[in-house]
Amino acid sequence: MDTATGPHRRQRHRGRRRAGGEDGRVQPIPQLPFRQPRLRIKPLELLSSDELERIHLESLRVLQDIGIEILLPEARDLLKQAGASVAGETVRIGAEIITEALKTVPSQFTFHARNPAHNLQIGADWITFCPVGGPPNCSDAGRGRRPGTLRDAEDFMRLSQYFNIIHVAAGASVDALDIHPSIRHLHLGRSKALLTDKVVFASSTGRERLMDGIELARIARGISHEQLDREPSVHTVVNTNSPLKIDGPMAMGIVEMARRNQPVIVTPFTLSGAMAPVTIAGALVEQNAEALAGIALGQLARPGAPAIYGGFTSNVDMKSGAPAFGTPEYMKACIVGGQLARRYGLPYRTSSTNAANSVDAQAAYETVFSLWGAILGGGNYIIHSAGWLEGGLVASFEKFALDVDLLQMVREFLNPLDIGKDALGLEAIREVGPGGHFFGAAHTLERYEDAFYAPLISDWRNFEQWQSDGAPQAWQKANAVWKRALAEYRRPPIDPAIEEEIEAFVARRIEEGGQPTDF
Amino acid sequence: MDTATGPHRRQRHRGRRRAGGEDGRVQPIPQLPFRQPRLRIKPLELLSSDELERIHLESLRVLQDIGIEILLPEARDLLKQAGASVAGETVRIGAEIITEALKTVPSQFTFHARNPAHNLQIGADWITFCPVGGPPNCSDAGRGRRPGTLRDAEDFMRLSQYFNIIHVAAGASVDALDIHPSIRHLHLGRSKALLTDKVVFASSTGRERLMDGIELARIARGISHEQLDREPSVHTVVNTNSPLKIDGPMAMGIVEMARRNQPVIVTPFTLSGAMAPVTIAGALVEQNAEALAGIALGQLARPGAPAIYGGFTSNVDMKSGAPAFGTPEYMKACIVGGQLARRYGLPYRTSSTNAANSVDAQAAYETVFSLWGAILGGGNYIIHSAGWLEGGLVASFEKFALDVDLLQMVREFLNPLDIGKDALGLEAIREVGPGGHFFGAAHTLERYEDAFYAPLISDWRNFEQWQSDGAPQAWQKANAVWKRALAEYRRPPIDPAIEEEIEAFVARRIEEGGQPTDF
Repeated sequence: MDTATGPHRRQRHRGRRRAGGEDGRVQPIPQLPFRQPRLRIKPLELLSSDELERIHLESLRVLQDIGIEILLPEARDLLKQAGASVAGETVRIGAEIITEALKTVPSQFTFHARNPAHNLQIGADWITFCPVGGPPNCSDAGRGRRPGTLRDAEDFMRLSQYFNIIHVAAGASVDALDIHPSIRHLHLGRSKALLTDKVVFASSTGRERLMDGIELARIARGISHEQLDREPSVHTVVNTNSPLKIDGPMAMGIVEMARRNQPVIVTPFTLSGAMAPVTIAGALVEQNAEALAGIALGQLARPGAPAIYGGFTSNVDMKSGAPAFGTPEYMKACIVGGQLARRYGLPYRTSSTNAANSVDAQAAYETVFSLWGAILGGGNYIIHSAGWLEGGLVASFEKFALDVDLLQMVREFLNPLDIGKDALGLEAIREVGPGGHFFGAAHTLERYEDAFYAPLISDWRNFEQWQSDGAPQAWQKANAVWKRALAEYRRPPIDPAIEEEIEAFVARRIEEGGQPTDF
Repeated sequence: MDTATGPHRRQRHRGRRRAGGEDGRVQPIPQLPFRQPRLRIKPLELLSSDELERIHLESLRVLQDIGIEILLPEARDLLKQAGASVAGETVRIGAEIITEALKTVPSQFTFHARNPAHNLQIGADWITFCPVGGPPNCSDAGRGRRPGTLRDAEDFMRLSQYFNIIHVAAGASVDALDIHPSIRHLHLGRSKALLTDKVVFASSTGRERLMDGIELARIARGISHEQLDREPSVHTVVNTNSPLKIDGPMAMGIVEMARRNQPVIVTPFTLSGAMAPVTIAGALVEQNAEALAGIALGQLARPGAPAIYGGFTSNVDMKSGAPAFGTPEYMKACIVGGQLARRYGLPYRTSSTNAANSVDAQAAYETVFSLWGAILGGGNYIIHSAGWLEGGLVASFEKFALDVDLLQMVREFLNPLDIGKDALGLEAIREVGPGGHFFGAAHTLERYEDAFYAPLISDWRNFEQWQSDGAPQAWQKANAVWKRALAEYRRPPIDPAIEEEIEAFVARRIEEGGQPTDF
């Protein structure tokens, strides 16, 4: 997974390789090569295995005694055939059905991108960073906060492609509200297939949208239906309608993706105090019940299909009902969610989030709280890890650039510490001796260029220099970074025949009307 | 340790108890009661015990083969008597001397405050938050960046006393540059003894300063010299002069504090690439050598005297030489430093830091990176945890208030998750049922006031409300918090006879000239 990404290969960052080289030419933004970080340390555990078992057992009791509403008849039938009790839309699922179904979920799988150098490992200790997905609005310092357009969505695709620390091209980091909903997914899908070569996403908010997304992923990779059936190449997120409900399109998404051996991330949206109990333990019981029900449904449709356990439990502000993110409660839920996923041997999806309205200190500290919860909690697939603002109502360009720096910092942190003989530095310490300094030591000169992570945003100049340069805030530096990234972005190469096939497919499907809507 | 603090007792924070109660009266800032958090989970470990042993052994080799310069003859004599080889000012200390000396350091001790409700446990899984100490400058949004004065230092003392999450009254969060250095410590010591009743600090930058600090701590507690000798009541930080040097005043501080059974925090300032090797492993070897030498010296002066292992390894910006904080390298050093301290059974001091020039996103993310490194790395005593800015050149009032919120969030996170039957919420889930909501559930109504941490700074209003209120940034909210805290602050009660004794001691010592200086 350490392969550099063809035309987008970057030199490892170097202290001397910042903006403006010594010869006066502008150097590309220094970034780390494309590679998935791995959590080589044991994930944090907040609960003992006995305590974890209580949440597990209680969630099975929820499914068996209270049951879950599933609005798709076909999905209810699958569960009924497996032995569940169905009354109207309510399905009561016995513990043994869940336990049996979970046995067939792969604990790790390869996720295929258009560019094989961008293939991902999902599961085990592998970490994937996915950018923000879903906000209706976007913002940047120059143009302010506004409804998203296709052009904005494309700019986020370019940034997701450009930055090596972003492993996935999200569905749409901001929605393209200037395009009619019936054909919006086709425009977004076309842009994504052409502007990025990282793994892609299909929306399961309607059968045609899902099928179009799957087909575009297949065409972009230039593979047959049979190969697609062997190789996970497109994923979707299914949010349950908490509490205890899976609507028609979501159930359809689970079933149809599983049938095609494509990964589904089942993520209950269990806001403690609103859609879930006001206790974090209770919200986790509900999260676990809903996630297990969704994943089991997929396995009944096709045993062995890849699935990801999603956790998104947070709390609300009990004064206003507003969702809160990056809170202590969020971190706890995130970490225990990881314990639950690992208990079942499932890859774990979590998120890096905040509830701030601007890219200020709050945005940063809430994000870093949630990010460390996600990383140390054993998150394999971390959604919203770049660009999320306002609790998910806004995709921010400045936040995207700032988050890229945070993610690179996390990745550097996760690199094992070199404790080889040379790194231990005894000879350097001897050479310098008491009271000396290491700036000119041979040990230093051999290593200084690559010794430390060189940040994109952090300003380490002294106060006087910083002030004389206009006292830039972090968001202003981030503004410059994303603009420069867009300027440097180049479309990844694509086989002209494949590009033609994408264009033809999208044109035909637009002609056919796309996804029927009520709009 | 859960005792509320007498006249400063606060109700546990409640959602409804924010500024402006329903009856229109201003409520005090909601805060958690005075209590030390505990790390009830296993600290993070980045190195295996074999790998850790390599750092340990290499640092012993440094002390044995290269040696350390100690500028105080008395300290060299103590080491020589223990078997060390002394040549000029260089002392070569054999591994067995270190190993033997470390055996007598207590792994945990009670640290006594003027107010016994503010006593602390140092060591094991106990966590202590100490505010910023040492910057020459301070800043706030209204008055800007400026050299510190006694008045500023006193305001930081008031904030340290006011906020329950701050466990310690630092020496001086900002230096009192308006007072002559010879008597500055006496003015600061008097203010501290009267404005706070939390554990105190004495400066070891000169013999008189140290002795005055110890005596003020004794008088303020109203105890005899014998009782002081039994009860650690005042601490100091000794920074070695890295690499491999301990100057006269610092060595004096170690020896004299140990003789009085008062705790010394020995903290090498091993900036990787400047005063230590450019590799983090090498910097840790040096840190470990210096910390162990200092701690061993204290044990030779008095076996069993309390001591704290200090780690402060970070990296520099290799382009400018500027120190960097809250970096991935910093976190690694912080966590491995904790592994080393635990290997020796020593309490561990670390720090919460950043290198930002303003209270922006950078200040927040660098701080939170370092804070989680400190917490999860098993830090027992976390210095600079409120107010530090500009790599330690500035104590910021806004940063102080912001950090208080972060520390409270950490504390909430460390509270064990309740997974009792009621918390698991099965009956609430049954009551609400599929598709319902929990806002009105009995389970919610019984718990909503105290269910979640209510932040001091984070703004969770929606964008429109936030914008119509002037779009406040986090630093602006922090500005309001510290001002309100100062307005609400009340001096802790003190026995009039003790107050008189403090005044008399300080007046006499000022009359005598305080600490001789070259100024």
